[in-house]
Amino acid sequence: MTTWNTGTTQVLSEFKEYALGPMRFMNLLSCFELGIVDLLQKNTRMTAQEIAESVGGTEAAIEQLLFLPVKEDFISFDERTGAYALARMALPTDEDFGRVIAWFNMIKVICLRQLYYLSESVKTGKVVGLRELYGFDGTLYEATAENDDLRMAWGAMMDSVTGFIDEWFFAHFDVRPGVKVLDVAGNTGLGAILTRKHKPAEDLTVACFDFPEKEADAVANFQEHGVREHCSFIGGNVFKGLPKGFDVVMIKHFLDMFDRENVLKILGSVHEALEPGGEVYILVPIYPEELKSSSSVDFFPAYFLGCTMAEGGPQRLSTYQKWLTEAGFEVVTAISQDIATMPPDMVPVHGLLRAIKK
Amino acid sequence: MTTWNTGTTQVLSEFKEYALGPMRFMNLLSCFELGIVDLLQKNTRMTAQEIAESVGGTEAAIEQLLFLPVKEDFISFDERTGAYALARMALPTDEDFGRVIAWFNMIKVICLRQLYYLSESVKTGKVVGLRELYGFDGTLYEATAENDDLRMAWGAMMDSVTGFIDEWFFAHFDVRPGVKVLDVAGNTGLGAILTRKHKPAEDLTVACFDFPEKEADAVANFQEHGVREHCSFIGGNVFKGLPKGFDVVMIKHFLDMFDRENVLKILGSVHEALEPGGEVYILVPIYPEELKSSSSVDFFPAYFLGCTMAEGGPQRLSTYQKWLTEAGFEVVTAISQDIATMPPDMVPVHGLLRAIKK
Repeated sequence: MTTWNTGTTQVLSEFKEYALGPMRFMNLLSCFELGIVDLLQKNTRMTAQEIAESVGGTEAAIEQLLFLPVKEDFISFDERTGAYALARMALPTDEDFGRVIAWFNMIKVICLRQLYYLSESVKTGKVVGLRELYGFDGTLYEATAENDDLRMAWGAMMDSVTGFIDEWFFAHFDVRPGVKVLDVAGNTGLGAILTRKHKPAEDLTVACFDFPEKEADAVANFQEHGVREHCSFIGGNVFKGLPKGFDVVMIKHFLDMFDRENVLKILGSVHEALEPGGEVYILVPIYPEELKSSSSVDFFPAYFLGCTMAEGGPQRLSTYQKWLTEAGFEVVTAISQDIATMPPDMVPVHGLLRAIKK
Repeated sequence: MTTWNTGTTQVLSEFKEYALGPMRFMNLLSCFELGIVDLLQKNTRMTAQEIAESVGGTEAAIEQLLFLPVKEDFISFDERTGAYALARMALPTDEDFGRVIAWFNMIKVICLRQLYYLSESVKTGKVVGLRELYGFDGTLYEATAENDDLRMAWGAMMDSVTGFIDEWFFAHFDVRPGVKVLDVAGNTGLGAILTRKHKPAEDLTVACFDFPEKEADAVANFQEHGVREHCSFIGGNVFKGLPKGFDVVMIKHFLDMFDRENVLKILGSVHEALEPGGEVYILVPIYPEELKSSSSVDFFPAYFLGCTMAEGGPQRLSTYQKWLTEAGFEVVTAISQDIATMPPDMVPVHGLLRAIKK
């Protein structure tokens, strides 16, 4: 009989957990999707037969699906009466569930099937999953424009993340009143609007910079939020240069999409556009200096390489500092979100860097 | 600021681990698929640049993919030289890796994309993933006949499982010399051949029972293994009855594919075919009586409902005992594999039941 020593046993057991990952994920999500959790929130106790009658499927299938949540004590099962009830799953609030489900659904729609092609995406530098599943050649961010399922799944996840990040970012966004701010890759103006909202006393002028095709939506958003007077849109391509005349450049949720070479190009564009003394504020997901404490490295490499860009991925704060220095900046602030203040289910940890053109 | 109490923090942290499951799985598998592990087995130390030159992709992409195995200490990274080397991943043998990769690849090919449709499969009782991805209406076992990728991925996994199970099963297969054995759902004869091989002294006659279309392959296999004289093939459908005249019926790797009603039909067919005193031997993956100690419930419900049958799934040994009793048998043996003798990465735990027609 073959035997395994302690170290090997440990590694092979961990491999087993890896193999179970996709199965566990979808089994749990399916309990939400089918409405089983909702149903148990409304009713104290229900049998598999009663659940099946309400959500569809057979009694036997419901029993099978609930083995895992019962094992985890998420749901309880009474052997005598055959009744299921919420156990530990009664603890999270609706807000918690909303955030968690947005993440689960994003991972299902944007990652689960696409990941099948991860190795090929790494080799070719293309997001092969988008081509195979959506007939789309390009990045996820481009694909969201024409695929509702991708856009909605991604948007709901980003909303759940930015809701927690903005307050933190703007608490550290220390600008003098009246300065001119440029929001690089500002999409359709949300960053500009938030800047005005979070800094009402400073009376800032904010320009949103992005591809020209975003202009109409951005302007409509400015109008809707009553900031048309102080916010404007400038069309362009960051790799071809940025407009001059701004005191502060913001780059939020963007640098992690690129490899070193492209990050340095973007920082180069910023450096060229600013006057000496001009500042750049960067908000970006980061890996911690000590990988062991990270959940981000479990997520982002597969996400960026296999599902969104076929390049990019976060870096450590120290790496971004180094790259800013290489690009001719003096880094004056480099801080990480405090994990203790984040929802326990939240994957990305963000870093904030403030640097001055020398 | 929102805060979370200890219990909620624990649940939400566990949800995060669920969400990371598919990402972690494919990141690790990709390190094997791209040949990075192989490469590091042959070379002591290599930089990301050297690995990229050898396996394809960019240096930056290789760095990103290796963050996770470095975090896990599967692979080591020397910050000073930029060199990667095998760390704990040097511990498993080639045989261990072969078994693990067969499982990983099965989960990738047969489950990863198909799981996307789990909820719909549960609702409709069809394997929706096979229809959406392969244009196939039916079960995985039918789909393997015309899809090489499914057949190869599934076959390699089953080989890795049966290799460990057969010895255990036949050690408990206590038949008198000269008896006639029927192997129900015997596919193309492997079970019959193994029966002869494992019980050479007993001079058994074994018939393989399965759908008629399997006959040619089964007979060819009997010929090849030199058991043509003692092994035969009988075509039929177990739900329509089994041939009479056998002393012992074997049902290996089959009952878990069905829900209670169909299991009872199969056991009914066996009961009808046997004379009083006739025996049935069942080998089947089981859930442990105490779910907490199980990895099987993490795997099988999603596998059977979403990827293979859209019904079925293992049961506890006590449930199979109950069903055998309901079908008119007296259970004389009901044992579970000893987990301590199994490879630490192995998911299914099998049960063996021996029962006599009263």
